Amino acid sequence: MSDKILDRVNEPKDLKGLNYKQKSILAEEIREKIIKTVSNTGGHLASNLGITELTIALHSVFDMPNDKIIWDVGHQTYVHKILTGRKEKMNTLRQLNGISGFPKTKESEYDSFDTGHSSTSISVALGMARARDIKGEKNNVIAVIGDGALTGGMALEALNDAGASKTKLIIVLNDNEMSISKNVGGISTFLTKIRTKKSYMKSNNCVRKFLEKIPKFGPFVIRIARKVKYSLKQLMLPNMFFEDIGIKYLGPVDGHDIERIEWILNLAKKETEPVLVHIITKKGKGYKPAEENPSKFHSTSSFDIETGKSKKEKSKDYSQVFGDKLVELAKNNDKIVAITAAMTDGTGLTKFKQEFPNRFFDIGIAEQHAVGLAAGLAKQGLKPVIPIYSSFYQRCYDQVIHDVCIQNLPVVFCVDRAGIVGNDGETHQGILDLSFFNIIPNLTIMAPKDFIELEQMLEFALELNSPVVIRYPRGTQGVEKFVNHEKIEFGKAEVIQKIEDTYIQNSTNIIKNSRIINDKIVKSNMEVNDEINKADDKMFHEFVTDKDLKRVTIVAIGKMVSKGKEIANKLKEQNIDVELINARFLKPLDEETIKKSIEKTKTVITIEDNIIKGGLASEVQSLIINNKIQDVNIKCIGYPDEFIRHGSVEELENLYLGNMQIKSFEDF
Amino acid sequence: MSDKILDRVNEPKDLKGLNYKQKSILAEEIREKIIKTVSNTGGHLASNLGITELTIALHSVFDMPNDKIIWDVGHQTYVHKILTGRKEKMNTLRQLNGISGFPKTKESEYDSFDTGHSSTSISVALGMARARDIKGEKNNVIAVIGDGALTGGMALEALNDAGASKTKLIIVLNDNEMSISKNVGGISTFLTKIRTKKSYMKSNNCVRKFLEKIPKFGPFVIRIARKVKYSLKQLMLPNMFFEDIGIKYLGPVDGHDIERIEWILNLAKKETEPVLVHIITKKGKGYKPAEENPSKFHSTSSFDIETGKSKKEKSKDYSQVFGDKLVELAKNNDKIVAITAAMTDGTGLTKFKQEFPNRFFDIGIAEQHAVGLAAGLAKQGLKPVIPIYSSFYQRCYDQVIHDVCIQNLPVVFCVDRAGIVGNDGETHQGILDLSFFNIIPNLTIMAPKDFIELEQMLEFALELNSPVVIRYPRGTQGVEKFVNHEKIEFGKAEVIQKIEDTYIQNSTNIIKNSRIINDKIVKSNMEVNDEINKADDKMFHEFVTDKDLKRVTIVAIGKMVSKGKEIANKLKEQNIDVELINARFLKPLDEETIKKSIEKTKTVITIEDNIIKGGLASEVQSLIINNKIQDVNIKCIGYPDEFIRHGSVEELENLYLGNMQIKSFEDF
Repeated sequence: MSDKILDRVNEPKDLKGLNYKQKSILAEEIREKIIKTVSNTGGHLASNLGITELTIALHSVFDMPNDKIIWDVGHQTYVHKILTGRKEKMNTLRQLNGISGFPKTKESEYDSFDTGHSSTSISVALGMARARDIKGEKNNVIAVIGDGALTGGMALEALNDAGASKTKLIIVLNDNEMSISKNVGGISTFLTKIRTKKSYMKSNNCVRKFLEKIPKFGPFVIRIARKVKYSLKQLMLPNMFFEDIGIKYLGPVDGHDIERIEWILNLAKKETEPVLVHIITKKGKGYKPAEENPSKFHSTSSFDIETGKSKKEKSKDYSQVFGDKLVELAKNNDKIVAITAAMTDGTGLTKFKQEFPNRFFDIGIAEQHAVGLAAGLAKQGLKPVIPIYSSFYQRCYDQVIHDVCIQNLPVVFCVDRAGIVGNDGETHQGILDLSFFNIIPNLTIMAPKDFIELEQMLEFALELNSPVVIRYPRGTQGVEKFVNHEKIEFGKAEVIQKIEDTYIQNSTNIIKNSRIINDKIVKSNMEVNDEINKADDKMFHEFVTDKDLKRVTIVAIGKMVSKGKEIANKLKEQNIDVELINARFLKPLDEETIKKSIEKTKTVITIEDNIIKGGLASEVQSLIINNKIQDVNIKCIGYPDEFIRHGSVEELENLYLGNMQIKSFEDF
Repeated sequence: MSDKILDRVNEPKDLKGLNYKQKSILAEEIREKIIKTVSNTGGHLASNLGITELTIALHSVFDMPNDKIIWDVGHQTYVHKILTGRKEKMNTLRQLNGISGFPKTKESEYDSFDTGHSSTSISVALGMARARDIKGEKNNVIAVIGDGALTGGMALEALNDAGASKTKLIIVLNDNEMSISKNVGGISTFLTKIRTKKSYMKSNNCVRKFLEKIPKFGPFVIRIARKVKYSLKQLMLPNMFFEDIGIKYLGPVDGHDIERIEWILNLAKKETEPVLVHIITKKGKGYKPAEENPSKFHSTSSFDIETGKSKKEKSKDYSQVFGDKLVELAKNNDKIVAITAAMTDGTGLTKFKQEFPNRFFDIGIAEQHAVGLAAGLAKQGLKPVIPIYSSFYQRCYDQVIHDVCIQNLPVVFCVDRAGIVGNDGETHQGILDLSFFNIIPNLTIMAPKDFIELEQMLEFALELNSPVVIRYPRGTQGVEKFVNHEKIEFGKAEVIQKIEDTYIQNSTNIIKNSRIINDKIVKSNMEVNDEINKADDKMFHEFVTDKDLKRVTIVAIGKMVSKGKEIANKLKEQNIDVELINARFLKPLDEETIKKSIEKTKTVITIEDNIIKGGLASEVQSLIINNKIQDVNIKCIGYPDEFIRHGSVEELENLYLGNMQIKSFEDF
């Protein structure tokens, strides 16, 4: 029998009997379990190792699920999952049909709210606290937010509202000096000041004694002295930032000392107004490779525990191709500047940062400001490039429209992690961007079929004097080695595989079909009448559709051009001719090329790693309608109108785009 | 000859020779001009009267257009326009082909950047300042931002970045205790504290002298004393908020004392790092009706100068209908809560606020937080309703998706000012929302044809246990008195005008047409071949299209159902039968009803006050394609893929939807 404490802990109530010593051992056991799990499944490691003691303390002090914790971002909830009945399922973490890497209300009653994107927790917690008050209930609501997420505009908006609200609400600031990279900005500097001034807490008494020695000069001085005393708090700890806007500040305390954390959480619990508890933690705590390189172990694939080395050889991915090319271009163009919202590594900008520190801006988790900043830079003649993950572009949608596109400013929006991203699931899938960008006037939208085309497009985009989106997938998805790479021309598709123009034969076929109609019609009036009634007015369509032609147009965009090639090859085996068109531009779409092809083949397959609505499929459908091309068979491959769960990219593609396996015409 | 100073002032350089007395008179003359202008054209009054002296001071101290001012929101730029060469054009303000009510770089070199939405100026200004530094230039960049706009997340994100940037940048805080309504939140409370502590500034010297008298106890005390001295600043003025995050604070000064403003702006100009200048102004200053009711005169239609009364009788509009109905429903349902982002009046919530103060939340200009808050409230069982203007919903796009729709939470998003809003122009037109909402899974999207249907939809939405959008236009647009109001059923359209099912006749017609084809075909093979070559494969289409049928399906949504009715009436005069369908739901679209109708008529007109891409038109096009309905004539009425300028709603509709005037079939 194992003598692990963790074996006896399945739910928060099992913590109640443990003393601090035991809880401390439990923390180590949980860390061990998480390291083991993530070394197999991949996932967010450093943040979970950092928050272990804090999570144990939260579940010790509060009464879940009656009390509610909102985990900002949510990738730091592995400890929480282990403590709330999901210990045995950790081996399924982030796998298809397994437990999610984020809180999911559908997964457990202990998960109070789904999160995934940053900086939402204070808003949501304040909403829950207000709901509690309206309903006359009594539970606690706790937002747990990192110092990185705190700089997101939504969190700051919520702080402003909370500060004036007088609503009972606990904000736990999990301060590890990191968002994903090292944290940046004024608030971060301020938090560092607090951390480094901890020593002054001890001198507090000395100062007080000193001030008591000040001679008393009458009422004015007494009033002043009282203010000086109040001011002392600010003097010792520059925590005015929060208190200025009405949020009581408690802390800081060591986030790996469970006793201290429980003590301060109990203080916070007694407050009747918004209070912020400042906890200092260390990302990657307890696992040396992660402590030394928390950024690498922020989100990791499976790795070897001994060495910390990735199990899979990491090959060059889209982000790196982008980053390297940008460095190359920036060497010859001093107008190029790069902006990241706390994702220097993830978006491939590490090299750019090193080579051009004065033209590089990490502005924190603040996508709205990132785009506004780019607009200002572009207006003054520079060429800003902003790689942001697809699902986070939703955060700066207004700024793309309002600050950049209305004025037609030359900003290059690089949409990284577009399409299915896989194991991070619903909140991170990037399958809406083609659609939500497509409706913005003045915007050009491109997607490369492979690495080389990404390089071509980046170069092209920087020459264009107007806003551009370039979207590309996570990792190395869909990278087939295409041999040819035609020069990029504005609004021009690339015809990768062409069907020779056999218009005359086509016409002959139409005549042949006309004859059939003719034959049918002349039989007798009555017969025809019957037939028409049966066939409805689809009649002509069905006769005219010339399946004998055996020709198909495939229009694909981005990484799906590879899939288009695969399908084309399969169809070829059945003597079906395919015209394979790499759209390159969703906007402006190369209507001429696509139109000509569809008119020739009368059969079209569209393929995109985006939802079908509003993207390439919709554009091709409109094209068919607007050009009144009749009798077209069309099959649109893309994601349905639903949120796509987690699983590997391959699994999800098979699940959702299974119909991509077109074998023959009968599949239409 | 007039002896007005304003007559001699056309450009900023004309200010240089004026003394403070003259500038003060000039301010009054400008106010007079603005009151006169806006009383005719309508527009933003109170903010411009409040910022008159500040604008004169800015143009006196700085060297425009070399120095750059970014006007946050931008509706407070009338004084700026008068001082920068557009004095004579003020009578065309906000009119079609006239000058804009917002800064437009296309209009003047003195307009450094286009604004319209709130809280963008610090980001943009920081971008321009960084561009200046990269290019080695020397100009000043000034962001002018109100205290209301300062609470927007984007502004706070930018402050955080600016604070750590060390970049020379001037932020002028135009503090009038208002956003549009009275400002709210912790930051506002904090600013009020500063304002009320102005008196302490005077005692500053006394305190310093007092402290100098403190006996010296050695090095420790000296260190402490230095800190006490530093702390004194915080003691006198609780301005730590800004300085905590690295932004130097200057102020506050009286924003109607030009000499004082110029003095402090000159101090700011000398700074080499980010500095915030706090200016206290009075909204509506100098015009009594506006001073007394700045909210009413925030944005006004034309009015009588003597009385301040609106020239047009204000009739009940969509916002009020919404607000009144919500109050009625909330009386019987204590779960209903309402949230506004600083638009209590504009969105019709004034009555709700009065009746249910505990269920009403004005959270400031903070749309992201508004939706996050709603998500929290909804998760705990309440029914949040959030009216936000269409173009501002772009600000919380991620929150609608991530915080509400992924979890399918029952939040009612009321999209006010949807469609063309008119004189506010490009930044405020609400013609994208149908498209950007349409791609969000789990979301239901409705638009009412008139007031009564809005009431029905609101009631229906609150019963639905999932997220809903209801979008309606500004004012009283398109309000025809429809007599019938069928009960709302989920995903069901309303057939307002029906064509009797004459399927048999239809079939007979097809036979008749078949005969014609037949006749043509039998002529001779060669002749046919020629004809076919000429006609391409559109041949069948043109023959089959049965213009003799004289039937049309009109599918309209929202206020455009009125327009659909108009067109239907016109077509009726020509004996063309119309089936008029009020879509009611864009999502889910009533495909069955629309499909049946189109199959019957083979001719369809879609009408929406949205861009054509991604909205109703796209849905109907997809429906035709997916159902393989052949030979359909379709005409889509809606806005093109461009930003729509300012002008009256009627003018813009005529300009952009001119083709809405369908007179006969020949127009297809």
